[in-house]
Amino acid sequence: MPKKLNAYDIAKVAHVSPATVSRVLNHKNNVNLVTAQKVEEAVAQLGFEREKDKYATKIIMVNIPNISNIFYANIIEGINAAANANNYQVIINQTQLSDDNIQNFLELVKNLHVYGLVTLTALPNYVLNKLLNIIRVVQCNEFNPDVDLPYVSIDDYAAAKNATNQLIKSGKKNLCIINGPKSFRYSRERERGFIDALKENDLPINPDWLTSIPAVKYEIALPIVSQLLSSQKHPDAFFCASDTIGAAVINSTHKYHLRIPEDIAVVGFDNTVISQILTPSLTTVSQPQFQIGYSAVEMLKTSHQESPHLLLDTEFVVRESI
Amino acid sequence: MPKKLNAYDIAKVAHVSPATVSRVLNHKNNVNLVTAQKVEEAVAQLGFEREKDKYATKIIMVNIPNISNIFYANIIEGINAAANANNYQVIINQTQLSDDNIQNFLELVKNLHVYGLVTLTALPNYVLNKLLNIIRVVQCNEFNPDVDLPYVSIDDYAAAKNATNQLIKSGKKNLCIINGPKSFRYSRERERGFIDALKENDLPINPDWLTSIPAVKYEIALPIVSQLLSSQKHPDAFFCASDTIGAAVINSTHKYHLRIPEDIAVVGFDNTVISQILTPSLTTVSQPQFQIGYSAVEMLKTSHQESPHLLLDTEFVVRESI
Repeated sequence: MPKKLNAYDIAKVAHVSPATVSRVLNHKNNVNLVTAQKVEEAVAQLGFEREKDKYATKIIMVNIPNISNIFYANIIEGINAAANANNYQVIINQTQLSDDNIQNFLELVKNLHVYGLVTLTALPNYVLNKLLNIIRVVQCNEFNPDVDLPYVSIDDYAAAKNATNQLIKSGKKNLCIINGPKSFRYSRERERGFIDALKENDLPINPDWLTSIPAVKYEIALPIVSQLLSSQKHPDAFFCASDTIGAAVINSTHKYHLRIPEDIAVVGFDNTVISQILTPSLTTVSQPQFQIGYSAVEMLKTSHQESPHLLLDTEFVVRESI
Repeated sequence: MPKKLNAYDIAKVAHVSPATVSRVLNHKNNVNLVTAQKVEEAVAQLGFEREKDKYATKIIMVNIPNISNIFYANIIEGINAAANANNYQVIINQTQLSDDNIQNFLELVKNLHVYGLVTLTALPNYVLNKLLNIIRVVQCNEFNPDVDLPYVSIDDYAAAKNATNQLIKSGKKNLCIINGPKSFRYSRERERGFIDALKENDLPINPDWLTSIPAVKYEIALPIVSQLLSSQKHPDAFFCASDTIGAAVINSTHKYHLRIPEDIAVVGFDNTVISQILTPSLTTVSQPQFQIGYSAVEMLKTSHQESPHLLLDTEFVVRESI
C-alpha cells in the first residue's frame, strides 16, 4: 500500500515550509515553478503516491490567434499526436492576445492548472515572464526571441530567399512580395529573404512592391493585387506569404487576361488544400506543420534550464504557377 | 462589506446538508447540477458574495471533432463573440469522441470545472446523460435528438431539397449526391431532401449516384468523382455535402473536358472561401455559422427544464457552377 502524504516530511526534504508543500499539493496558484518542482521531487523521492495523480492527466493549453487559418490545423494534429503519446490532454484557446485581455488569459491558465502552454503567438516579454512563474512555455511557429524560452518554427528567411530565387530562375525580373502584417516575425524574415535574393541577383528593389496586408484573408488581398496588376508597369512575379494570397493573385490574373506562368509567376506559402484546388494550381512552400506541433509538445518536457531553439526546413512544392 | 459565507445558513435555505454546501462552494465534482443550483440560489438569496467569484470567469468548453474543417472557424467566432458578451472564457477540445476516449473527456470536463459544454459532435445517449450530471450541455451543428437537450443547427433537409430543385430547374435530369459519412445526421437529412426533390419532380433515383465518402477531404473525393465522370453514362449534376467535394468535381471536369455549367452543374455546401476561389466559382449553400455558434452559448444560459431546439435557415448562393 502506498504511504500517505505527510507535508512535514516533504517540507524537510524540499527545504520549504509545510504550508508551501500544502499549497503545491493542492494545486494552488501562488507558488512559483521552481519551488513546485522541488516539492514534486521530494514527493517522488520519499516514495509517496499522490491520490490525485492516479487519475489526473496533465493538461496542455495551446493558444492560437485565429482558428480560421487552416494552416494551424496540421500543427494542432501534431500537438494532439504528441500529447496522446505522452498521455496529456490538449485544450485550445483561440484569443488574439493583447494588453486588453492578457490578464484574463493569465487567470485562465492559473485556474485550469495547466501543465504547459504552447503559444502560437509571439507574446511580449512581460507576459512571457509572468507565464514562466506559473507554467512551462514553448513557443511554436511565431516566437519572441528576446526571452530565453524554447521555440520551434521554420527558417522563414531561407524559405523566402529560395522561393524568390526560383522565381528569378524562371526568368522573371519584376518581383513583388505580398506579405502578412509586419508585426509578425515570419513576415519580417520573409521580406529579408526576398530582398537579399533580389540583391544577390542584381535586381532592383521597388519599395511599392514590398507590400504587406493587415490580415491574411482572400478578400483583403484581392484589392491590393488588383491595384498592382492594373498599373501600367506591373510585377511579373509574386511571392505571397500564404496560399490564400496566392489564390487572390491567380484569380485576379484571369480578369486582366494575364497568363500564368507566362505573364505572371506566383509562389504561395503553406501548401494548404487551397494551393491544390486553384486553376492553375499554385506552386508553394510546404512547412512541416505536423512536426512543428509534435516538437513543441516534446519540448515541454525539457527542463527550464535548457531552451532548445529549433528551426525546421521547408520544401519548395512545384505546381503550375511558376 | 460583503457578508462572509456560512455553510450552515446556506444549507438551511437550500434544504441540503452543510457538507453538500461545502462541496459546491469548493467546486468539487460529486454534486449533481440540480443540487448545485439550489446552493447557488441560496447563496445569492442570502446576499453573500463569494470571494472566488470576483475573479473566476465561467469557462465554456467546445468539443470539435476536427479542426481542419474550415467550416468550424465561423462557428467558433460566433461562440467567442457570445462568450465575450457574457464574460465567459472559451476553451476548445479537438477530439473525435469515441468509446475509447470518452472517459478521459469526462474527466477533463470534471477537472476543469467548466460551466458548460458546447458539443459539435452528436454524442451517444449514455455520454450525454453522464455529462448532464456534471454540466450544462448544448448541442451545436450536429446533435443527438434522442436526449432532451437544447440544440441549434440548420434545416439540412430543406437546404438539400432546395439545392436539388435548383439543379433540376437549371435543366439537369441525371443528378448525383456526394455526401459525407452516413454516420452524421446532416448527411442522412441531406440525402432525404435530395431524394424527395427527385421524387417530386418524377426523376429516377439511381442508387449508384447516392454516394457518400468516409471523410470530407479533397483527396478522398477526387477518385470517387473520377469514377463517376469516367463511366459512359455520367451524372450531369452534382449536389455535394461540402465545398471541398465541390472543388473535386469542378477540378475533375477539366480533365474530362466537360464544361461547367453547360455539361455539368455543381452545388457545394458551406460557402467557405474555397467556393470563391475555384474556377469557375462554386454555387453553394450558406450556413449561418456565426449565428449557430452565438446561439449555442446563449442557450447555455437557459435552464435545464426547457430544451430549446433551433433549426436555422440557409441561403442558396448562386455563383458560376449552375
